[in-house]
Amino acid sequence: MTDPNSVGLVVPQTARFDQEIRLKSGACLPGFELVFETYGQLNAARSNAVLVCHALSGSHHVAGYYDAQQKKKTLGWWDNLVGPGKPLDTNKFFVVGVNNLGGCYGSTGPRSINPETGKPYGADFPLVTVEDWVEAQARLADRLGIGTWAAVIGGSLGGMQALQWTLAYPERVRHGIVIASAPRLSAQNIAFNEVARQAILSDPDFHGGHYYEHGVVPRNGLRLARMVGHITYLSDDQMAEKFGRQLRHGEHRFHYDVEFEIESYLRYQGDKFAEFFDANTYLLTTKALDYFDPAFDYGGDLRAALARARADFFVASFTTDWRFSPERSREIVYALLHNGRKVSYAEIDCDAGHDSFLLDAPHYHAALGAYLEGIAP
Amino acid sequence: MTDPNSVGLVVPQTARFDQEIRLKSGACLPGFELVFETYGQLNAARSNAVLVCHALSGSHHVAGYYDAQQKKKTLGWWDNLVGPGKPLDTNKFFVVGVNNLGGCYGSTGPRSINPETGKPYGADFPLVTVEDWVEAQARLADRLGIGTWAAVIGGSLGGMQALQWTLAYPERVRHGIVIASAPRLSAQNIAFNEVARQAILSDPDFHGGHYYEHGVVPRNGLRLARMVGHITYLSDDQMAEKFGRQLRHGEHRFHYDVEFEIESYLRYQGDKFAEFFDANTYLLTTKALDYFDPAFDYGGDLRAALARARADFFVASFTTDWRFSPERSREIVYALLHNGRKVSYAEIDCDAGHDSFLLDAPHYHAALGAYLEGIAP
Repeated sequence: MTDPNSVGLVVPQTARFDQEIRLKSGACLPGFELVFETYGQLNAARSNAVLVCHALSGSHHVAGYYDAQQKKKTLGWWDNLVGPGKPLDTNKFFVVGVNNLGGCYGSTGPRSINPETGKPYGADFPLVTVEDWVEAQARLADRLGIGTWAAVIGGSLGGMQALQWTLAYPERVRHGIVIASAPRLSAQNIAFNEVARQAILSDPDFHGGHYYEHGVVPRNGLRLARMVGHITYLSDDQMAEKFGRQLRHGEHRFHYDVEFEIESYLRYQGDKFAEFFDANTYLLTTKALDYFDPAFDYGGDLRAALARARADFFVASFTTDWRFSPERSREIVYALLHNGRKVSYAEIDCDAGHDSFLLDAPHYHAALGAYLEGIAP
Repeated sequence: MTDPNSVGLVVPQTARFDQEIRLKSGACLPGFELVFETYGQLNAARSNAVLVCHALSGSHHVAGYYDAQQKKKTLGWWDNLVGPGKPLDTNKFFVVGVNNLGGCYGSTGPRSINPETGKPYGADFPLVTVEDWVEAQARLADRLGIGTWAAVIGGSLGGMQALQWTLAYPERVRHGIVIASAPRLSAQNIAFNEVARQAILSDPDFHGGHYYEHGVVPRNGLRLARMVGHITYLSDDQMAEKFGRQLRHGEHRFHYDVEFEIESYLRYQGDKFAEFFDANTYLLTTKALDYFDPAFDYGGDLRAALARARADFFVASFTTDWRFSPERSREIVYALLHNGRKVSYAEIDCDAGHDSFLLDAPHYHAALGAYLEGIAP
């Protein structure tokens, strides 16, 4: 049975870029590949393209599925948003998802072969920044013949990329859509990232980042990193509602196996993640988060930093998001308004914390859908 | 130079209990030792004794110092509260600090020799609960000839013990003083504890809890556990104020060494803690936190659970404490008031988060001091 609102079976593509890319750190990659997917049709005017930027653990696989027999298991991470008749309507828009540079889903990253050594880059893969990702994505846009994006959209770290697009290429983005994001990490945000990193870096199986050669992965470290992360993705209230103090066996058993259901949930999430995600990519992605700070070169003045933007904006935050609270989104909105930008802002009442941006909370998709509907194709 | 407000040089004492203690888990210890300190003089009526209960990383060393040349380094953890002329005035009260059963500061715990094997208990040390701690403390009270405490006081996990005292021995506590505490952990609280535990349990140097025999300690795991803990002890605001995005070198250097000052702080706290604290004690203490739930046997009804209490109460919370928020303290206050208890409650405006209870924020010590002043010796 086909779902008329699904983009259906999709196949990723790979774009190879042979021109070197100089990164913000000063390091240089001689060339690179990006894995991407597209949904919908680019119109004749090439004016209906929307770029979807992914967050920490996301990928180019935004919508549709890889296997009709295993739809649910192979579904894109934002499939509830992207498709025919969905808020980001592929009947109207040509949607592009891309795995970022340094990722572990096929784009050039730590798992790739370093042409200089013939071995995987591992820890030698340079640190990449949000700015570098946008630079790489711009080359993909050139390749696809997309001069101007109708919109660049992302949640969390993806929202930072959307914001960065409007600053790096003000004339190439008509609408910046920044969801559950922040203009820069707080000390607490960095602190959580640092714990995650230390968990990986101190895992004996990390081998200084060259674990591929040792035939192991720093599974424990990655698992711990993900467990910490998960706590910050959920709201306190939602955890209380979903798990509370529910006991696995209805009684206290006085051991270190699972007693409370929340323990089981966290272990499961950690184990699952450690099965497939690459630890070096996790490390460099948390660093990209830490470094992102468009106001850095403006003495911390976000208003001055955002003066370059020419896009219109849709910004959304979620009331129970304590990782990137509504206050952080309001900082962005304020700085944009200060610069006379057209900004729509929705503060959504949703109990799912930071992860709300991945869900289809009714008011959220309604507000976002209404905004997207107003964008000329 | 002597400080007239200090209890001065102190020496810990050890009490040996040869009668077995049956723990809540069903396990049994054939006997045990408790290390404790006392400050001030027990009056003739034996009516002026105050028990100070410690939190996760605290000890019996509440006030004074061990070395006059190294006062600051050897100062008790609540020295700002306890001493002659201080809020918990040792001119009036006989104050007792005790290291809990299972601790690592001298009381019987995982580092102690298991009489059955002749080797350290390690992972074989039974899990202990807040109820067990109170039971052991009651034996110490008997030994010291203290029939009734003028007050039992504690912050965080210490506050849980103070509350438990008023339930286990309603007639032996005149005043329960519960600071920055909660009637039970939330799912989020348990989640953070679980990450800390998994960090220790998955450290290859943990050796199933028998690391003493291997001549190592699970330093990495303990370090990570403490780093996670520290994030939850501080408020977001305080972290922002104290560290913000301050860079170690004034610029981004694109490596995994310390970039931001908050990273340096966390690593330092983790390293320092891992130097001296025992991982098995850390594990069992987090479990004691998880298990504490006086309402468990009352279908979750805290009001019913607290009906036994006969003490008067002072409860305090801190506005920026997101580990045990004011809301959690209000639950205790509400349940006590429901039972007609006399309750004083102070919600203190302090930016230091959960750790506020260890500081001498002016309104805090003023409120607590006023309450203590009202207690008949």
